Amino acid sequence: MANDPAVKAMDSMEEVWEAFRPELNEVEAQIEKHLNSHAPLINTVADHILSSGGKRIRPLLLILSARLFSYPEKEFLLLGSLVEFIHTATLLHDDVLDEADIRRGEKTARRVWGNHASILVGDYLYSQAMALIASLHNHDINEIMADACRKMAEGEVLQLCANSQPDLTETDYLKIVEYKTAILVAASCKVGAIIGGASVEEQMALYRFGYNLGMAFQLADDRLDYSADHAKLGKSLGQDIRQGMITLPLIHLLQACSADEQTWLKEKILSHSVDDQELERILGMMRKQGSLAYATSRAREYIEASALDLVSFPENPAKRSLAIVSAYMVNRDQ
Amino acid sequence: MANDPAVKAMDSMEEVWEAFRPELNEVEAQIEKHLNSHAPLINTVADHILSSGGKRIRPLLLILSARLFSYPEKEFLLLGSLVEFIHTATLLHDDVLDEADIRRGEKTARRVWGNHASILVGDYLYSQAMALIASLHNHDINEIMADACRKMAEGEVLQLCANSQPDLTETDYLKIVEYKTAILVAASCKVGAIIGGASVEEQMALYRFGYNLGMAFQLADDRLDYSADHAKLGKSLGQDIRQGMITLPLIHLLQACSADEQTWLKEKILSHSVDDQELERILGMMRKQGSLAYATSRAREYIEASALDLVSFPENPAKRSLAIVSAYMVNRDQ
Repeated sequence: MANDPAVKAMDSMEEVWEAFRPELNEVEAQIEKHLNSHAPLINTVADHILSSGGKRIRPLLLILSARLFSYPEKEFLLLGSLVEFIHTATLLHDDVLDEADIRRGEKTARRVWGNHASILVGDYLYSQAMALIASLHNHDINEIMADACRKMAEGEVLQLCANSQPDLTETDYLKIVEYKTAILVAASCKVGAIIGGASVEEQMALYRFGYNLGMAFQLADDRLDYSADHAKLGKSLGQDIRQGMITLPLIHLLQACSADEQTWLKEKILSHSVDDQELERILGMMRKQGSLAYATSRAREYIEASALDLVSFPENPAKRSLAIVSAYMVNRDQ
Repeated sequence: MANDPAVKAMDSMEEVWEAFRPELNEVEAQIEKHLNSHAPLINTVADHILSSGGKRIRPLLLILSARLFSYPEKEFLLLGSLVEFIHTATLLHDDVLDEADIRRGEKTARRVWGNHASILVGDYLYSQAMALIASLHNHDINEIMADACRKMAEGEVLQLCANSQPDLTETDYLKIVEYKTAILVAASCKVGAIIGGASVEEQMALYRFGYNLGMAFQLADDRLDYSADHAKLGKSLGQDIRQGMITLPLIHLLQACSADEQTWLKEKILSHSVDDQELERILGMMRKQGSLAYATSRAREYIEASALDLVSFPENPAKRSLAIVSAYMVNRDQ
């Protein structure tokens, strides 16, 4: 299907989803197949979050990265389900840490089954993924995924330490984004490339591509918290600052605003109390200082960097799709 | 040192610790070496719990299981540190789930640095262990450890589901014990055997040995909660029933006691409220019905089973030490 002339001319995310639907459906089948624990609660909780409308961006990137090179046996799609397991494990733990009640417009697992179930099912999904990856007997894939998981855990701790620290620098912020988000996207692309039979150089190009895409994705996501349509995002605006989470628009604003404004902002960050009127004031300050435009431009820089790593590959539907996914990363809901 | 005639005649745990001190010291060095995260909080929290007087039973069993066969390069002791990392990760998450304030007589990590840090540092220790195991490029060890981690997570969920369920059967209880405790002990022994160059049959014998030892260990530990010297255990008596956790002495008592007593006990389990006087009453009932003696005898059965799997091995200091560790498992603080 991906060889169809109509697919080659595609230019929207909908067409990408459509073109790779058979592979994505197989990923769904693998997800279902491997939610087979002795503990029914694991299957219930995992199914709740895995069926809640996640876009399967990481499995899609893994598929596209493999298809860029070859058409391997569909067994490789197990790996697509496993990167989604790992991602989902982090969401379950994140929701506990953030005390989140809503995700993608639905009640969070921790809200329905409690924090304990969310922590443990997160542990299970993560270890189930690692066990299935180990069963494939591929050292490279093992090491890439285990290293990604370690860095993600490290990123979460760095983020915890950065909470309510108004002096967080852009460099520190970008390190957190790299560890907690970009590394897993990069790993998904590299694993896809390995399965597709790519050379070591090509694997590295896909890793860098995924890294830049992941950075752009998180930057755009953090920016959305200050600008998204509430209903589309499925959560309230300004959640990050209310939880003391310092992201790029706020880092920019803290540097650009007046000393008085900075003092006021720091007080708001430290107190974790920002009412709707105060949020409006902050949004106004961000507009005035160009903080949101700055965050967008930084995200776009990563997208531009990601394009460079695709240049050398021959034109094919997978390459076209990777470019479309890139553009989609910074144009969601804005 | 382990070949010394004095070691061969050893008959106490103190002598075992002493005889294998050089290897255990190397495990400590490896633990310290691999607490090298970018996030200082990880190193601080992990060091707090890793330095709190844990007995390193799992690394010791791994060492003894290797030494039963050969004297491999000391690099293998990295694996001793990694089984301790995995064990410690579960302790950090357990303390969050149990809302525990005290472990081994010290404040828990979650009490000092909060639940968030404990969850995330647990995630880190676990993923750091898996990443280092992956770096060894040994498929067998990879699979054993990943499978152990998956089963441990599953066991924790089974335990969560069994909480406050007075109808929990002994079979269900033993499954939880197997998953949450025995599998990692079994894996530690099997990994040791692999490193020592054991045959597949010998590896399986060591796995069964560790499994039985782990079962005995947890049964004895659960029994201690109803009988231990408070100061020695470093926590209060009767913690399990106060948290709705059903263990073997209570399962026995629920079956052996009168209908009226059963009704009262179930009410106590469901309400999570047991004052000191009520605990005394429960302990009296357990003494009368022989519930503690029953739990002890079940633990001893596992120890006896573990001995069978050592019979075929030639006598050497490691074998002698494994037998001493077995006996120690059911004779702690009683």
